[in-house]
Amino acid sequence: MTIIQEKTLSARTRPDFPILNQTIHGQPLVYLDNAATSQKPIAVLEALRQYYEHDNANVHRGVHTLSSRATDAYEGARDQVAAFVKAASRQEIVFTRNASEAINLVAYSWALSTLKPGDEIVLSVMEHHSNLVPWQMMAQRTGAVLQHVELTETEEFDFEQFKSLLSEKTKLVAVVHVSNTLGCINPVKEICVEAHKVGARVLIDACQSVPHMAIDVQELDCDWLVASGHKMCAPTGIGFLYGKLDLLRSQPPFMGGGEMIADVFLDHSTYADLPHKFEAGTPAIGEAIALGAAVEYLSKIGMDQIHAYEEDLTRYLFRQLATIPELRIYGPKPNADGSGRAALASFTAGGVHPHDLSTILDQAGVAIRAGHHCTQPLHRYLKAQSTARASLYFYNTREEIDVFVAALKDAIEFFGGLFG
Amino acid sequence: MTIIQEKTLSARTRPDFPILNQTIHGQPLVYLDNAATSQKPIAVLEALRQYYEHDNANVHRGVHTLSSRATDAYEGARDQVAAFVKAASRQEIVFTRNASEAINLVAYSWALSTLKPGDEIVLSVMEHHSNLVPWQMMAQRTGAVLQHVELTETEEFDFEQFKSLLSEKTKLVAVVHVSNTLGCINPVKEICVEAHKVGARVLIDACQSVPHMAIDVQELDCDWLVASGHKMCAPTGIGFLYGKLDLLRSQPPFMGGGEMIADVFLDHSTYADLPHKFEAGTPAIGEAIALGAAVEYLSKIGMDQIHAYEEDLTRYLFRQLATIPELRIYGPKPNADGSGRAALASFTAGGVHPHDLSTILDQAGVAIRAGHHCTQPLHRYLKAQSTARASLYFYNTREEIDVFVAALKDAIEFFGGLFG
Repeated sequence: MTIIQEKTLSARTRPDFPILNQTIHGQPLVYLDNAATSQKPIAVLEALRQYYEHDNANVHRGVHTLSSRATDAYEGARDQVAAFVKAASRQEIVFTRNASEAINLVAYSWALSTLKPGDEIVLSVMEHHSNLVPWQMMAQRTGAVLQHVELTETEEFDFEQFKSLLSEKTKLVAVVHVSNTLGCINPVKEICVEAHKVGARVLIDACQSVPHMAIDVQELDCDWLVASGHKMCAPTGIGFLYGKLDLLRSQPPFMGGGEMIADVFLDHSTYADLPHKFEAGTPAIGEAIALGAAVEYLSKIGMDQIHAYEEDLTRYLFRQLATIPELRIYGPKPNADGSGRAALASFTAGGVHPHDLSTILDQAGVAIRAGHHCTQPLHRYLKAQSTARASLYFYNTREEIDVFVAALKDAIEFFGGLFG
Repeated sequence: MTIIQEKTLSARTRPDFPILNQTIHGQPLVYLDNAATSQKPIAVLEALRQYYEHDNANVHRGVHTLSSRATDAYEGARDQVAAFVKAASRQEIVFTRNASEAINLVAYSWALSTLKPGDEIVLSVMEHHSNLVPWQMMAQRTGAVLQHVELTETEEFDFEQFKSLLSEKTKLVAVVHVSNTLGCINPVKEICVEAHKVGARVLIDACQSVPHMAIDVQELDCDWLVASGHKMCAPTGIGFLYGKLDLLRSQPPFMGGGEMIADVFLDHSTYADLPHKFEAGTPAIGEAIALGAAVEYLSKIGMDQIHAYEEDLTRYLFRQLATIPELRIYGPKPNADGSGRAALASFTAGGVHPHDLSTILDQAGVAIRAGHHCTQPLHRYLKAQSTARASLYFYNTREEIDVFVAALKDAIEFFGGLFG
């Protein structure tokens, strides 16, 4: 069953990604840097081309044909994203450049106007910088206090400690759904339940979950959820913020400009309804439309099928990595069927510097990332200066994992011979 | 000479814009909405495609080949933009989603940390909402006071009144270079001289100038200058902020996240050098690279040639519009050679609603805009609820102006018969 799935999904989708069909240093490209950004299928590139070659115009403010077409396509993309994450209303989806901007929007709009000295913000030590730095800035401005959930022995979110941090002082819980470094899947639904008991709001950084599994914001009951398009087959320059309707409605605007206003006078302005209140200036029209195409592409495959296929790859990846005794892999082990964590592995190999590993693997055509993956505090917590990371997506294959693991063994042997 | 120019430039460039080769309601498309957004040449769309089909990866943080290629291309685009506006340093160019975000960046970063109650911000009544609303927000937060330069009898920037508003209280002058509604070209160089005499900073909204004429930020001596890519042949989702190096360096960051940090700890962070300090999260990589291609495309044509050609079109446009006595055209008249104003005309035609005009013209294949063009206060000042606007670019032709003017006459005759 799983072997059939693997063959079917990769064989079916791989021709959609022309970029994968190239050689690097004479070797077939094995792209295992999907947690940094995904590749784009032809359907998405065609949506971009179609928009720019047939329909390009500015949106909302024009009555001519191209402007109507552009507006319909742009707002249609919002419908697609709303349906994809099961939002209750299309007005709950705000387009942003990326997930970072979505978090900053909540920080500048909600946090800056709401938080008081002594209020508490609960984060975790595994947060991406994008879900740390904005809250540091807001804590500095408002006098709110940051708290951090640590890890369990299996290097997962410590839910018990999390509960112990909650009190009536807690106004915000901002946590990542799937860690881009540890690969753990955090219990965000239960986190929302506990946070709401004390009246706190919850923001979910879903950059590493929305591309890989079915997400239902109403079932999670989160207050905000952010994701970036470029990690889910869409172009760069587009991401989105989901927020509960009443909450978004109650928030003051973030950036000012065209599109987000109702009436402008010289000395004051009134603001547009949701979602436009939060979209100042000409939006990333083509990119939003292409995000709609990406969502359609992923939906046609089926997020459950993508998730199941990636679990199978995870199982295979960890089985193969287990044959390299020098490796220290961070985060929880997968279950026997490959479930329970994301299809990525961050690791170190004895004294070999991850950048050197990545450089050597690049010579074999294998693209992995080395560094702190924008989780410096987590790396400090783990006492690792940096890690190497291989991260998969539905178009990757077992054969690519074999190439990666063989190249990794060669590299470790090479450096072992050098320094061992 | 001018006729040769016209034939040469339009004939040479028109095949580069596949979107223009279509019919609307059975008529050839005449796209005269360039002040809202420009069309994109094949070279730009090819740069996008090339990036996504060959080089797509996240930038700065990877050592593998694709990531190096993406980083080189992205930072290369910054070099191109810096050279295009003659910045002294590539570090003076910050990529943003659009010009609105660039202005908000200055507002949230510089204004919010600098302005004190009673400080004065000088704007003009012709500003785009993007150069009004952010300053209203900052005035509200800081206690700074907004002042507005009005218009001369020829409906241009009143330079004498401007000078009378300046004092040591003036901390910021934020003005548009070329009005998207009046078409007037403001004396921004002289504005900078006067503002700097009293120690004020100057921000130039160059959205309607950078696409149409050569700009030299060092010659203008402005402190900041903003522009949007989509109005200058680039995709949506990309714009830029130019700022003087020492000034940008002194400003606190705006949005927090990945890319803009040096070191992140759980409770605080240190920030990256310019320009990355202001670029939080994964940037609009493909769109920035395509902006670089747009700048290359425009530079190959030559900005002076574009400007001269547009002056010739302006002369022709105003001569043809002069044959319609019902028209009230806003802003200054062009000089005899077509110079002195932008290649656009905002107008009303007696009691005919501009939206109705635009709808009727669309039936003839002519795309013009109707509304307030994001300058509501200016429209109030002019006592016009809305205007119709035809705006040209270098790929437009005299023949298209003929089609537009003939359709406009038909429409006015039609409505005259109805209401006259």
